[in-house]
Amino acid sequence: MAESWENPRGEQKTPAVGRYARAGVDIAAGNEAVAHYRRLLGQWRHADQLDAVGGFAGLFRLPGDTDRVLVASTDGVGTKVLIASELGRFGSVGADLVNHCVNDILVCNATPLFFLDYLAVGKLDAAVAAEIVGGCAEACRAHDCALLGGETAEMPGLYRRDHFDLAGTIVGTVERQALPNPESVAPGDVIVGLPAVGLHTNGYSLARDLIPPTQWNAPFGEGTYADALLAEHPSYYRAVRAIQAVAGVKTMAHITGGGLLENVSRTLPQTCKAIFEQARWSVPPIERELVWRGDLGIEERYRVFNMGIGYTLIVSLQDAPAAVAAVPGAKVVGWIEARSGDEPQVVIHPGQHE
Amino acid sequence: MAESWENPRGEQKTPAVGRYARAGVDIAAGNEAVAHYRRLLGQWRHADQLDAVGGFAGLFRLPGDTDRVLVASTDGVGTKVLIASELGRFGSVGADLVNHCVNDILVCNATPLFFLDYLAVGKLDAAVAAEIVGGCAEACRAHDCALLGGETAEMPGLYRRDHFDLAGTIVGTVERQALPNPESVAPGDVIVGLPAVGLHTNGYSLARDLIPPTQWNAPFGEGTYADALLAEHPSYYRAVRAIQAVAGVKTMAHITGGGLLENVSRTLPQTCKAIFEQARWSVPPIERELVWRGDLGIEERYRVFNMGIGYTLIVSLQDAPAAVAAVPGAKVVGWIEARSGDEPQVVIHPGQHE
Repeated sequence: MAESWENPRGEQKTPAVGRYARAGVDIAAGNEAVAHYRRLLGQWRHADQLDAVGGFAGLFRLPGDTDRVLVASTDGVGTKVLIASELGRFGSVGADLVNHCVNDILVCNATPLFFLDYLAVGKLDAAVAAEIVGGCAEACRAHDCALLGGETAEMPGLYRRDHFDLAGTIVGTVERQALPNPESVAPGDVIVGLPAVGLHTNGYSLARDLIPPTQWNAPFGEGTYADALLAEHPSYYRAVRAIQAVAGVKTMAHITGGGLLENVSRTLPQTCKAIFEQARWSVPPIERELVWRGDLGIEERYRVFNMGIGYTLIVSLQDAPAAVAAVPGAKVVGWIEARSGDEPQVVIHPGQHE
Repeated sequence: MAESWENPRGEQKTPAVGRYARAGVDIAAGNEAVAHYRRLLGQWRHADQLDAVGGFAGLFRLPGDTDRVLVASTDGVGTKVLIASELGRFGSVGADLVNHCVNDILVCNATPLFFLDYLAVGKLDAAVAAEIVGGCAEACRAHDCALLGGETAEMPGLYRRDHFDLAGTIVGTVERQALPNPESVAPGDVIVGLPAVGLHTNGYSLARDLIPPTQWNAPFGEGTYADALLAEHPSYYRAVRAIQAVAGVKTMAHITGGGLLENVSRTLPQTCKAIFEQARWSVPPIERELVWRGDLGIEERYRVFNMGIGYTLIVSLQDAPAAVAAVPGAKVVGWIEARSGDEPQVVIHPGQHE
């Protein structure tokens, strides 16, 4: 589980029993923790804290500034760090993290201002730390986002000598009038999907369970399993800005832990449901391999993995052609229908090629 | 090591060999990592990123806002989390973390706006997570600081089932003209110290080495070793504001990893040195015990532990009486002298009772 807990909308998440749970990740416990956190928020909430669309980030009204809000999000890389450690490939986890964070606040239409990292290690190797933080710095620079600081902690006893964890916090800003509004979404709208390159930063505990370390250097596709597993979490910042330049974007979702099933629903009004037709896009080979190895059901595969869609944008039918034409790889992946009663908010018609 | 790396001033830190290194914390590697980070910052720096006093926090000029800056800091609790895990006492680590972060930006005179936590666990127990995050929420509330979000990550394979790590990021704000200026410090100024209650969040790897878990529940002072080791990292926010109401405060330092030796020097001009006279304050019993058990030399004890001073403020001689009278426990603990050449920036005259 990798769960941003601020203000998730009211929907009930179905615990995914099965392979993911056996791999040691308990989505039910995650949901229970989120329920506790919401209770905490219910007990006290700062007056300048605003409701955030879908809970991907937190919104804070800057005192004395009526036009814009600060948007912040904290995230980690998940157990992808264990693959990086095992293989001694530290170059991309920094970008994984920064891009993940950039995408999370992009859902609120925010532009990054600054980022801070938290790097915890069992035994500090200065060169490795510099490579990891250097990856953060490079990804920050690509977004004209300051790397404002961070913390490097050497914690023997908590981390194995060769292990590390990496987390980070991004702060951005958005004009209040530019905050996406889920209530603008209506039946007949179109869902544009931006392609995922792999698992990004979610589902790694299951992936490591299904593809053991002894196989990581074996050939897979045009490279190795390791290459596919470590493929860098992309930033959708430029793609989204390019689409917004030609189309009215109503709401967006970053497809992280919880997959299409849980992330898209967070940005819909209660009266709408999203219908995805998987035949419209392709699933990355590594995810197809994992689905096959784990014999993962529809429910589980679309909750644990992004299944090929890294980011979604909802636009009007009229704007859809311009939106998909604006960015290579962007596709119409589904549409919005009216929802009644307790129908699920996300429906996926699986493709034939999974 | 727990090292805020943003913009540490140019001084050379002496590697502490000895007990701390044997406990698994390599200060030399930490300094080397910091040198790498500074090189990264040298390669690219955001135009709105400002120099921060002493590197306790990062400063960012909010676009279009000429009067104030955002101040941000990320930190962790260190291996104090291992003591909390072992004893199943999760109530105070949240406050440890938030108060640490509050103090870090307070050095820049900043008022907290919002905080985000990162909680990573081996096996998610929702009730434990709620207790830890609840501790954060309570400490945030005490500072009228929004708990804006966070991340709870279940990461089997990286953390033991019963282990967790906790880090957080705080963002505050300060008027530009209210930023402390080290150049205002002059020989003859007085150092006011605010008392520490124990180790706060630094030196725990050494402490765990010197006081093994089998002894944690043994009586110590008015409670147990566990009580002394888990004593909550205090926030100095209200004390500092009370002193500022009656005295002109020139610069401040939060005494964390690196102790008085490294933290105070970060807020001094090159032309000044700080002289501490330990007989002027008392060292908490748990730190005296650790010094005794580890036979720690002057250098090491004042670098690994706070040795009883949690926060320092530099005021003019004239303002000193009002400053110490404003807050119970505040004491004159030293003074500023002129420094020449390569003299050390911090000199400590040890007391007799250590």
